[in-house]
Amino acid sequence: MAIRIFITGGTFDKEYNEITGKLYFNDTHMHDLLDMGRCRVPVEIRTLMMIDSLEMTDHDRGLIVHQCANADEDRIVITHGTDTMSETASIIAQKISNKTIVLTGAMIPIKFGSSDGLFNLGSAIAFAQTLPHGVYVAMNGRYFHADNVRKNKQTGMFEELK
Amino acid sequence: MAIRIFITGGTFDKEYNEITGKLYFNDTHMHDLLDMGRCRVPVEIRTLMMIDSLEMTDHDRGLIVHQCANADEDRIVITHGTDTMSETASIIAQKISNKTIVLTGAMIPIKFGSSDGLFNLGSAIAFAQTLPHGVYVAMNGRYFHADNVRKNKQTGMFEELK
Amino acid sequence: MAIRIFITGGTFDKEYNEITGKLYFNDTHMHDLLDMGRCRVPVEIRTLMMIDSLEMTDHDRGLIVHQCANADEDRIVITHGTDTMSETASIIAQKISNKTIVLTGAMIPIKFGSSDGLFNLGSAIAFAQTLPHGVYVAMNGRYFHADNVRKNKQTGMFEELK
Amino acid sequence: MAIRIFITGGTFDKEYNEITGKLYFNDTHMHDLLDMGRCRVPVEIRTLMMIDSLEMTDHDRGLIVHQCANADEDRIVITHGTDTMSETASIIAQKISNKTIVLTGAMIPIKFGSSDGLFNLGSAIAFAQTLPHGVYVAMNGRYFHADNVRKNKQTGMFEELK
Repeated sequence: MAIRIFITGGTFDKEYNEITGKLYFNDTHMHDLLDMGRCRVPVEIRTLMMIDSLEMTDHDRGLIVHQCANADEDRIVITHGTDTMSETASIIAQKISNKTIVLTGAMIPIKFGSSDGLFNLGSAIAFAQTLPHGVYVAMNGRYFHADNVRKNKQTGMFEELK
Repeated sequence: MAIRIFITGGTFDKEYNEITGKLYFNDTHMHDLLDMGRCRVPVEIRTLMMIDSLEMTDHDRGLIVHQCANADEDRIVITHGTDTMSETASIIAQKISNKTIVLTGAMIPIKFGSSDGLFNLGSAIAFAQTLPHGVYVAMNGRYFHADNVRKNKQTGMFEELK
Repeated sequence: MAIRIFITGGTFDKEYNEITGKLYFNDTHMHDLLDMGRCRVPVEIRTLMMIDSLEMTDHDRGLIVHQCANADEDRIVITHGTDTMSETASIIAQKISNKTIVLTGAMIPIKFGSSDGLFNLGSAIAFAQTLPHGVYVAMNGRYFHADNVRKNKQTGMFEELK
Repeated sequence: MAIRIFITGGTFDKEYNEITGKLYFNDTHMHDLLDMGRCRVPVEIRTLMMIDSLEMTDHDRGLIVHQCANADEDRIVITHGTDTMSETASIIAQKISNKTIVLTGAMIPIKFGSSDGLFNLGSAIAFAQTLPHGVYVAMNGRYFHADNVRKNKQTGMFEELK
């Protein structure tokens, strides 16, 4: 059972530019993480964009929906910035119901020693294999349905709406 | 849905003793890893033993079975050395069928920068929430049924028997 | 031979704020780094400020000079942002000549896995013990006299003026 | 002023073999460490051996002395296991007096997240540039003369004999 992995950017893939002192996007760390996890699940990785999710436009989300709809695989993991992860999940859920799609990300960049990214990726890969068709957010070791999740801006944790 | 976590040792929790130059067990890193993963799944952690799985006896395995049977939770994650993980899974499966029990571990100690432990823990926590009752091994991003898994000693990867 | 260590901030001590997604100052990592290096040189650590060196004012530099002049120790290490490290070194050198003062910092925050901070600190502690009285910048494994050093903004490396 | 770096093994370069569960030598991490430290001191690196210093023979030490004597550079850093570092330093000091030779190592393998190796290397590179001719051990942020140093087996720290 192959899993399609789409990269969209987010904190997950941010790096520190030592010349400018700013965080920026260079290349995805997905391959390194899957190697570190000794992951043997067949995956197809494609980078769709490398952006901060606060800058994600309707057009960007349309592209993500299009790519999910057209992927051969019916199990998909999407890395995404946490700030608008639930919005994107909701939009995908309105369009696609015949696949298991799991969005995940990180609160701390992978390149920081203390990132949650590797843990989140492990859980997302697992949820993608076991959850029924639907769109989900996988954060904090939990999974949330796309229509019942938000990021708590004060705590940084994901929670149900109701 | 709370998850019970049992610690038994294994590579996962090995540390480097800088006086003797040997790997040894000090204390579990489970709390640190769950913190790093910003895990918000309710968990109850108990250390049953801290041993290399090559040294695990029938008596040790009996204790693990007993603890699984008596836990209030019906979702259980067990950290375990990889060398005999499939043997222990098989023994638990012979005794317990009304819970979801997931064994996981690491090929590289958590304290090494390149450990697979955080990824494996993320997947095990996810599998424990979503798989039906049964006993499983969660390694390499995959899950295996207790009666159909072995560690390939040459590659270090887990695989089906048939 | 005790060494006085003054903390002024800089990239060295920047952390990632997972709520805002910005880099910020929390507390110095100096104690952790000296522990990691198993450092047994007697040190006295004092935090003077926690700022980006681009925001350092004449008043701030006056405070640093004052603290260097009044320290009991005649061997001093100062952690400092790299952008204006050579300017601060030059100003200290105009006022103090009877002590060995070594400025150092990092191109990448300590909390990133790939930081140069621990290497730089090791070299600065060593230079402070062995160089004659004077003011120096210790970066890139080298030492530079305060009146003959600049940071190359293109490469991020320190170099002599002539 | 170029520095010659000789690699002899020791804890510094030990890695974890995930198939056997043993620590072993693969290749030196010196290049990675110098890159991480953004080191710009010209260096010439040569691996002489990759062994645990408890297994170092008279013949091995003779080879190290020979290589030090014949190196073009008069500033040399040697990475070495900590258990017999002071013995090797003493033997080199009996034969060579016209160069600055600094032995260093690590209490924890570089590949562990909490290694002292990068700190020690930074200090050794600095001491090699600033100390007068002689043979030294650089550990714990300090330098010791070859004829007045031992590793305290209880604490793991280096100290003067008298």
